Amino acid sequence: MTTSFHPPKPRALTAPLLVDVATGRSHADVVVRDGRWVNVHSGEIIPGTDIAIIGGRFAYCGPDASHAIGPKTIVVDAAGRYLVPGLCDGHMHVESGMVTVTEFCRAVIPHGTTSMFIDPHEIANVLGLEGVRLMHDEAVAMPVNVHVQMPSCVPSAPGLENNGATLDEKDVAEAMTWPNIIGLGEVMNFPGVSNNDRLMVAEIAETVKAGKVVGGHYASPDLGLAFHGYVAGGPEDDHEGTRAEDAIARVRQGMKAMLRLGSAWYDVAAQVKAVTEEGIDPRNFILCTDDCNAGTLVNDGHMNRVVRHAIAQGLKPVTAIQMASLNTAQHFRVDRDLGSIAPGRIADFLIVSDLAQLAIDEVWGRGVKLAEAGKLVVEIPPYDYPQKAKQTVKVGGKKVAAEFDIAAPKGANSVRVRAIGVVENQAPTRALEVDLPVENGLVAMDRKADICQIAVVERHRATGQVVNAFVSGFRYAKDCAVASSVAHDSHQIIVVGTNKADMAAAVNRLSEIGGGATVYSGGKELATVELPIAGLMSDERAEIVAEKAERLKQAMIDCGCTLNNAFMQHSLLALVVIPELRISDVGLVDVRTFEKVDLFV
Amino acid sequence: MTTSFHPPKPRALTAPLLVDVATGRSHADVVVRDGRWVNVHSGEIIPGTDIAIIGGRFAYCGPDASHAIGPKTIVVDAAGRYLVPGLCDGHMHVESGMVTVTEFCRAVIPHGTTSMFIDPHEIANVLGLEGVRLMHDEAVAMPVNVHVQMPSCVPSAPGLENNGATLDEKDVAEAMTWPNIIGLGEVMNFPGVSNNDRLMVAEIAETVKAGKVVGGHYASPDLGLAFHGYVAGGPEDDHEGTRAEDAIARVRQGMKAMLRLGSAWYDVAAQVKAVTEEGIDPRNFILCTDDCNAGTLVNDGHMNRVVRHAIAQGLKPVTAIQMASLNTAQHFRVDRDLGSIAPGRIADFLIVSDLAQLAIDEVWGRGVKLAEAGKLVVEIPPYDYPQKAKQTVKVGGKKVAAEFDIAAPKGANSVRVRAIGVVENQAPTRALEVDLPVENGLVAMDRKADICQIAVVERHRATGQVVNAFVSGFRYAKDCAVASSVAHDSHQIIVVGTNKADMAAAVNRLSEIGGGATVYSGGKELATVELPIAGLMSDERAEIVAEKAERLKQAMIDCGCTLNNAFMQHSLLALVVIPELRISDVGLVDVRTFEKVDLFV
Repeated sequence: MTTSFHPPKPRALTAPLLVDVATGRSHADVVVRDGRWVNVHSGEIIPGTDIAIIGGRFAYCGPDASHAIGPKTIVVDAAGRYLVPGLCDGHMHVESGMVTVTEFCRAVIPHGTTSMFIDPHEIANVLGLEGVRLMHDEAVAMPVNVHVQMPSCVPSAPGLENNGATLDEKDVAEAMTWPNIIGLGEVMNFPGVSNNDRLMVAEIAETVKAGKVVGGHYASPDLGLAFHGYVAGGPEDDHEGTRAEDAIARVRQGMKAMLRLGSAWYDVAAQVKAVTEEGIDPRNFILCTDDCNAGTLVNDGHMNRVVRHAIAQGLKPVTAIQMASLNTAQHFRVDRDLGSIAPGRIADFLIVSDLAQLAIDEVWGRGVKLAEAGKLVVEIPPYDYPQKAKQTVKVGGKKVAAEFDIAAPKGANSVRVRAIGVVENQAPTRALEVDLPVENGLVAMDRKADICQIAVVERHRATGQVVNAFVSGFRYAKDCAVASSVAHDSHQIIVVGTNKADMAAAVNRLSEIGGGATVYSGGKELATVELPIAGLMSDERAEIVAEKAERLKQAMIDCGCTLNNAFMQHSLLALVVIPELRISDVGLVDVRTFEKVDLFV
Repeated sequence: MTTSFHPPKPRALTAPLLVDVATGRSHADVVVRDGRWVNVHSGEIIPGTDIAIIGGRFAYCGPDASHAIGPKTIVVDAAGRYLVPGLCDGHMHVESGMVTVTEFCRAVIPHGTTSMFIDPHEIANVLGLEGVRLMHDEAVAMPVNVHVQMPSCVPSAPGLENNGATLDEKDVAEAMTWPNIIGLGEVMNFPGVSNNDRLMVAEIAETVKAGKVVGGHYASPDLGLAFHGYVAGGPEDDHEGTRAEDAIARVRQGMKAMLRLGSAWYDVAAQVKAVTEEGIDPRNFILCTDDCNAGTLVNDGHMNRVVRHAIAQGLKPVTAIQMASLNTAQHFRVDRDLGSIAPGRIADFLIVSDLAQLAIDEVWGRGVKLAEAGKLVVEIPPYDYPQKAKQTVKVGGKKVAAEFDIAAPKGANSVRVRAIGVVENQAPTRALEVDLPVENGLVAMDRKADICQIAVVERHRATGQVVNAFVSGFRYAKDCAVASSVAHDSHQIIVVGTNKADMAAAVNRLSEIGGGATVYSGGKELATVELPIAGLMSDERAEIVAEKAERLKQAMIDCGCTLNNAFMQHSLLALVVIPELRISDVGLVDVRTFEKVDLFV
């Protein structure tokens, strides 16, 4: 069944119909009988519940809805199974899945996710407000609720990097008028908030003026005055906490503690102890994923994985489900429309046969069955991204190996250079200093010492610019190169390699296909994930992207890389907001001091 | 200290100042040291807390705010006492206190109330939208937060009564644009909602369209389909429940259960068992007063009385306080601005020396000390009601005793008539039938059988109309009459008397003074409460109104009336929406069938 999907009519317009069905004067579209109602309002589980649906919304929830059943009513027997509100992801980035919003929905709906609060921060760094609008418009067309947070920090480090576009408070004000914009995306410039940075103040003010929610991102363990300053500035939630005391501090200050379980984030177990051990009121806790790669979505799950994990940490099932439904909806002030099974709300619900394991038999959205036994049963039409969004990789002509040459100071036989030290399982890097030989006037790599080259290749404005430096930690043991146009947050091209010809070939390949990630070795392409949309997202199915990403990972392993999350480590090396040493199109950046530094010590 | 008060600046405009104070770059206006922070977000009580205030909002809440103290900062030593959020009354009518909004605030601020959600339903029945605007504008000028619910059912029973003005969905739409309008007031026409009454549907739609909250009023024990229809129609809260199952039913359906303790409402104890005995999640419970007379306000308290009572029923103090702070603020979507002690919120708080008893030492609003030891320490300037609002009692010339004559059918020696039977401690009346003698062609009263006369005297349009009937239950034993221009909901004049000359005199007195309540006996005025504003509210101090109301009560007792809440019983006799028999300017109304009936059986 291929359908085009429309958001349900506003509740007030549907109300007379809801009343007629509730009272038995009209018949429902769908009646589900004999469910165990997981009631996130009362905190109860109520057996023997029937629900009646009309116009995509719940009209009646209570005992015996036979009065709502007519000849055309679809009757579903829940047979004592649980009726659970559709799950909400409180904060996430679609781009992390390397797929479109449509494909993301296709992947996560069978896992029970029916509402997402997405921050299209990555595309914003490539295409600016236009990119946000594209993903927003795609979001509107989904069969589930995809609310969009307007990215707040684009670029994330003005002056230390150049990206594809910048956003300011005027853009924020404009976005606030779009139908599916729910608020401001994570305000990552936390020192800026604490220091009353003009742009941060203005963006927050525009958001509050529009009555929308300001998302937070306070990525520091310091709970002293810097934290208090951040809270006072207005962010209303935060998903960057990692310890129970982080969650408690945020809740005490009137923020929502968002607990995150993504592909590489494991922040639920420690923080949920605030509830299970410290007795903090759970109403201000929200579950989210932040970042999931396609492999996680296809193989492991989405919000169902998070809720299941939270229950396994000792939360009552209904409490964990509140954290992925009512709490989220209340936070974003959309609880009148979603986040619970109750009259008037959009009919998003799951039929679940085991609550603690969250075994989802069926997923319904807006009163339509969307998935059964883990498979989508509707077809979501693909969203057509315009050509312009697929022509974002402009490196200024074919690259050659010589562009990756690093000239040594005249007459030197060996040099001491700064090198980025990748740390296993951590986002921060080390600022290393290493000695390298000089050959034919050029600084040479040292494969034995695990020092290879890294370059940022400008790709937004076809300047042809290449910034070269050194990196350690990938343990590439062959002639090879890995290039990616996913390169947080400015999304230039990062290429890491032991061989300059492979580096050039890998970059040229990305240029050909409009972006993605690729591994070359000895002139041969080992694996590629094509990401033509903004150089960030595939236009293929999530399953295919997951497979290609898996092959990419294997190719990196084949080249000698032993890191967990090797590709993520690669793609974060230009993130000039996380210490200690990073690279951008501006040069090497010491993120301890937020200053550009020389390659040579 | 006389000040004019202004609502605090929007949070977003104050934010930079808040940040500066939180981080120690600027000094606070006020710092309170060493408090026990009653944290309604986390559910904790946190000793050793300092709070810093700037621009009427909390900037910092945490340990040691010495960094925020400068030479001009007012430093308050809480000395280990509790810091409690200012209390919120989730639903109430100022007019029930027979005082202005200003006087109501003067009375309740010392009791710790700093936010009220008021429904100026009574003045709306007299002065329509203009009356609502007057009280709204008065509300805006208060030193505490007075949010206004736009009355929804004016008149409450179209066709069965005439009042001073009607409101429709266009009025609702207009009101939604006023700054302090928070939503739609209790939708009392609950059969109308269940039946998709056009006006109810339209008013609710306008409210939802404006993003505001629809107040409920489902005054029926029937939790069947009529209830489900009401819920489906959109009301989001309800304060008419009386039993634990009422509260549970409302919460399950996604409504807020408002538990009411007013002067004559005692609905908390039974319903709070939903939490204390049934384990229902307390987050959807809200405390309110609905109606408090001046005597209660002056002598017994306001929301402090309700919270204390709720704690005495076995709620944890912090849970009871949540029900009068955060829960209320969240419901009305103003939790970013009020309902907790947390950064960014308006600095409304109490310094409390005993939590379970809610012994309030100091009341602060917007960072200013408003009351101490039960006494107001600021002067709130009186609000000037226009002359028009004081000229609402127009009975069409001086009344004479003969206008209360009830002619018997020609030739009858005795007649059987319908009489309204007042029932002690209940709002519903009985529809009695009694036999009365005929004297000189007129039906006579029967003082021994406790049958006296009641009349509704038209006062909105000077039609001169008088509708006469009989009432039983007051036990007036002398020649006397009691008249009132407070006569729910149409607020015509109700006069009850054993003597027609006294009835005329009492009505004429009200006409002279522009409305109020008065007791006459043997041609003498025994007691009067002048209510010149819309015939509903005094322009005097609450203490004086309470005294006068007390004298009125004593005068009714002196005339032989033994009822509890005698004046309330009197003022409800025209409320043609509560069974069984009522009187309006249209005639006698059987509220079991919603039909006009004859006086003679």
